[in-house]
Amino acid sequence: MPEFGGRQYLDGRASDPSKLGWMRGAPPPADKRITFEGDSILAFPQIRWSLSHMRELTPSVNVWRGRGAPSHFERYERTTEIDALTITDTDGRILRFDQALLDTYTDGILVLHRGQIVYERYFGALEPHLPHACHSVTKSYAGTLAAALIADDVLDDRKTIPHYLPELRGTAWEDATLRQVMDMQTGLAYTEVYGEEESDIWKYHRACGRRPRLAGYDGPRSLCDYLGMIRKEGEHGTFEYKSVNTDVMAWVMARVSGRTFAQLLQDRLWSPLGCEEDAYVHVDPAGMQMGAGGLCVTLRDFARFGEMMRCEGMLNGKQVIPASVVRDIQSGDHPAKLDDGYSYRSQWWVTHDEFGAIEARGIHGQRLYIAPDAEMVVARFASHPLASAVIGDKITMPQMTALGRMLRA
Amino acid sequence: MPEFGGRQYLDGRASDPSKLGWMRGAPPPADKRITFEGDSILAFPQIRWSLSHMRELTPSVNVWRGRGAPSHFERYERTTEIDALTITDTDGRILRFDQALLDTYTDGILVLHRGQIVYERYFGALEPHLPHACHSVTKSYAGTLAAALIADDVLDDRKTIPHYLPELRGTAWEDATLRQVMDMQTGLAYTEVYGEEESDIWKYHRACGRRPRLAGYDGPRSLCDYLGMIRKEGEHGTFEYKSVNTDVMAWVMARVSGRTFAQLLQDRLWSPLGCEEDAYVHVDPAGMQMGAGGLCVTLRDFARFGEMMRCEGMLNGKQVIPASVVRDIQSGDHPAKLDDGYSYRSQWWVTHDEFGAIEARGIHGQRLYIAPDAEMVVARFASHPLASAVIGDKITMPQMTALGRMLRA
Repeated sequence: MPEFGGRQYLDGRASDPSKLGWMRGAPPPADKRITFEGDSILAFPQIRWSLSHMRELTPSVNVWRGRGAPSHFERYERTTEIDALTITDTDGRILRFDQALLDTYTDGILVLHRGQIVYERYFGALEPHLPHACHSVTKSYAGTLAAALIADDVLDDRKTIPHYLPELRGTAWEDATLRQVMDMQTGLAYTEVYGEEESDIWKYHRACGRRPRLAGYDGPRSLCDYLGMIRKEGEHGTFEYKSVNTDVMAWVMARVSGRTFAQLLQDRLWSPLGCEEDAYVHVDPAGMQMGAGGLCVTLRDFARFGEMMRCEGMLNGKQVIPASVVRDIQSGDHPAKLDDGYSYRSQWWVTHDEFGAIEARGIHGQRLYIAPDAEMVVARFASHPLASAVIGDKITMPQMTALGRMLRA
Repeated sequence: MPEFGGRQYLDGRASDPSKLGWMRGAPPPADKRITFEGDSILAFPQIRWSLSHMRELTPSVNVWRGRGAPSHFERYERTTEIDALTITDTDGRILRFDQALLDTYTDGILVLHRGQIVYERYFGALEPHLPHACHSVTKSYAGTLAAALIADDVLDDRKTIPHYLPELRGTAWEDATLRQVMDMQTGLAYTEVYGEEESDIWKYHRACGRRPRLAGYDGPRSLCDYLGMIRKEGEHGTFEYKSVNTDVMAWVMARVSGRTFAQLLQDRLWSPLGCEEDAYVHVDPAGMQMGAGGLCVTLRDFARFGEMMRCEGMLNGKQVIPASVVRDIQSGDHPAKLDDGYSYRSQWWVTHDEFGAIEARGIHGQRLYIAPDAEMVVARFASHPLASAVIGDKITMPQMTALGRMLRA
């Protein structure tokens, strides 16, 4: 059995939720139930079911695709060839592409090359029409919308947050600019360590109604209440990845545009991209939508978003997002280059790799890898046992490289 | 201001949720929030917003429409003519059709004549693509599916409930046949009086996660747990409208078919009817779907269901439901004729009126009125202040009669 962080877990095949019988039966037997109250949503192996069924566990708002026909993908299947592709992970282990998918607890993967589907596979509980949790990939959707609103002069990223949200005076964001928030350049007294029960990430989730509250709970009862409690620590101007920044950014967008996050996604992405299915966003107990991690989308619609970014904002015969916005993100020409060689811009990870790739990343293995120089987009959903956005990288990054080189050849 | 049950309420126009500002703003101001925790979902005037936004307040499961094109409705608009139609309500008050809609707190109404849309209007928070709560109209969907499963020999309505659900031995349903359950002919120690806080209907809602539980709650924690607690009172064989029967019926369907209620709706109705939008069903804390009142659908898809029933199970070029099932319901040829002249069959109300109409009815004014002899279907959603399935009848029934006569002429 694979081991992560000193604990053993069922492997990708053995943890298949249909084999294990999670949430099967009418009603599901007590020992096979995944419940919000029982706090089992993110537990392993339950997570292998729940990430494809989030709306059955918490409230959600629809992202409507509109009435148009879905945009069409041509298919040029290279399944056998890709499955057999050999990868050497960063530990030196040699494995096949299809084994790498199991080893990273993949729920679904779709590979586009020159806009054609060359590979599409589903595992576990995921089906083509089912939205899967994006977790922090949500941030890249939100950041793209924010950058588009800046390009439209609806927002000004040089303004400080209280210009848009006066109620955040006196908080960490009092003197943070919208740009600093978008690029995670803020100093916040807030910790985000999933493995620690006392970490602020869980206070934040409890406030948002993403985690059950214990009897006698007297903490914040909504996302905005929680954001208003966060104080400054250190200085702004240095990269620190903290999800609450994205919620502040999404709050600014909603306040200024008069449209909710779901409506902005619908207007600016779902409808013009010609998405196949509706998506949805988690709603907090006060009716606010979570911009940092609340989105669930289907694998194909996830790929549509990636293909639009690869094509400098064009898809479905339309300039969906201004090309200048996409170029700014892809350029990597930003002050903050991080220790691992990445930079971070408008809620996207810029790899500076041989394909000029950018990435959207979410915990448990959510990934959108957009590689212009290989004319490739890889959309992947997963339900890895660990709540990390880099878990699996030692397999996933060599996998992306091998695939990009094969397709570019 | 109109008065119901000795209390005054804002009228249909004044209670428009967009005018009142419910759930507007980011976040909505505290005094304009509708929250599950605050138990304001069914309060008036909040209900005028919430019935079009149920999934934003509780967990839900998707009813997928599939990938086909929506079935097409021809249009032959008679809006002006219908708006001006004169109605005399049962109190002798004379009013126009459009005023009658306001007086019954209508959120949306669609009238089909010979399968063409002759009238379609939306009010308040409802939009064409938004699913609205069906409440007990859900029962008629579920009853139609159950009757179809009987026609397919998957279920046998002469069997007693424990034949399918052994865990209900020792409960009220131990010696009730599936047919008695389908026709609400059971003697249950269970009350359903919405106006009484101590009525069992609220215990049932709390068990199902449709109503908040107070601190220290120690009642049943799921739908099936609650159903297992209900004991017999009196004898089976007499009509008494009790929602929990429908949940038992839906539980039988799910157990025997191996498909959830949402999947059955998808397989047997949404996909073959060519519905325009996905629908959704409320999910209880144990993952069970509520067959008695948990469905939310768009107005047009609601009308599609009615038109299929009018056409003896045919729509979209397909025999969607066996004609024998629809004829059995429409015939009214059943032993139990009720005091008001109605009979009740397979979760449908049979009017025995001049059009041979059958009805699906839900609290707060949900109604599907199917009138074969006027070649008419009226689909209506409403958010009336009172939780009654007959409230508004003194206006609505003369309205249906006037409309049917006009269209038949």
